[in-house]
Amino acid sequence: MTQTAERMSLIVFSGTVDKLLAASILATGASAMGLEVEVFLTTWGMMAFRKGDYLKNTRISKDFEEYGPAMMEAMQAKKAPSWMDNLVGAKEIGDMKIYACSMTMELFGIQLSDLEPIVDDVTGVAAFVERAKEGRITLFI
Amino acid sequence: MTQTAERMSLIVFSGTVDKLLAASILATGASAMGLEVEVFLTTWGMMAFRKGDYLKNTRISKDFEEYGPAMMEAMQAKKAPSWMDNLVGAKEIGDMKIYACSMTMELFGIQLSDLEPIVDDVTGVAAFVERAKEGRITLFI
Amino acid sequence: MTQTAERMSLIVFSGTVDKLLAASILATGASAMGLEVEVFLTTWGMMAFRKGDYLKNTRISKDFEEYGPAMMEAMQAKKAPSWMDNLVGAKEIGDMKIYACSMTMELFGIQLSDLEPIVDDVTGVAAFVERAKEGRITLFI
Repeated sequence: MTQTAERMSLIVFSGTVDKLLAASILATGASAMGLEVEVFLTTWGMMAFRKGDYLKNTRISKDFEEYGPAMMEAMQAKKAPSWMDNLVGAKEIGDMKIYACSMTMELFGIQLSDLEPIVDDVTGVAAFVERAKEGRITLFI
Repeated sequence: MTQTAERMSLIVFSGTVDKLLAASILATGASAMGLEVEVFLTTWGMMAFRKGDYLKNTRISKDFEEYGPAMMEAMQAKKAPSWMDNLVGAKEIGDMKIYACSMTMELFGIQLSDLEPIVDDVTGVAAFVERAKEGRITLFI
Repeated sequence: MTQTAERMSLIVFSGTVDKLLAASILATGASAMGLEVEVFLTTWGMMAFRKGDYLKNTRISKDFEEYGPAMMEAMQAKKAPSWMDNLVGAKEIGDMKIYACSMTMELFGIQLSDLEPIVDDVTGVAAFVERAKEGRITLFI
């Protein structure tokens, strides 16, 4: 029988700024509520955590691309924290772990040392699912 | 310890007609099954609920854009209800609440009065997560 | 009261190779962990299961389209299994069922016999939700 944990698990598949922002805000909100947060970076989501990439990433979902500049401007004007700022904050206030998908790393020839230091470790999908299924919320973003 | 509720929570991030239709059909199916439904509108999903927007929204996921016209024609030919029709129906048959994300509203300078009246209220992500984690299903759409 | 099942349910809405691959790897990982897996094919996800379509599908999320050729090459170079190979494998090692959404089939005029034989049956969204809500993880992909 599966035990139950006060945990939210996020599979971050996308690497667009708008989706990364949504993921980071969910991580922050869940951390503030006392939930453990586990983030699993895969495919394009992992690409967005390559060292230095977040500083130049201005990619917005193509479905809403025309709103991108207005969104970026609004964030600057309101001094809204970036998705990376949010993740740093979620780590500070709560219990959040960020894992890179071992299969994506192998496919794209990426090492843990190629990723931002906020990424804690590498894990496989089966191990991630094993822990996610104990949790309260699991999302594919 | 978290209590358990017969609830489905939908984070509606996207504002394309194909995804809104999927969200609305899930909301209808869950309502028919007696689940409470909570919808959390964020980012482009909230944009799609600005007053009058649904009447002119023909946006289809760019990944499948070439199927858009055939989909719209099939919906008209079969008199399939629109996503807004489905949501109105889900409210009638069940217990569905639609919330706008306070952070998105602030970022884009939108008020509750700018949104369709089907939107019940404004809420923050932490409050939404707090209720979603009690539920059975939470999806990011 | 809802009973609890060791089940993961995947709503496969998208039909791009990168998302189908992610879905198939999650299905494989969950099957390896002893979870039942239920896949619900809807909209563009169902289109990707039309007979023979997987042999010619090279569609990658437009948001990351420029990485598509490198991804395809890496998969060939490393002899990585395709998403269809993964699903066939998940069926062999575990308990996975794939259902096509009855509403999508009706809308697009598609019959079960038009779909790859890996698709087990047709079901409605309410029946799918009814079973998903008993499970541990439900994802919208």
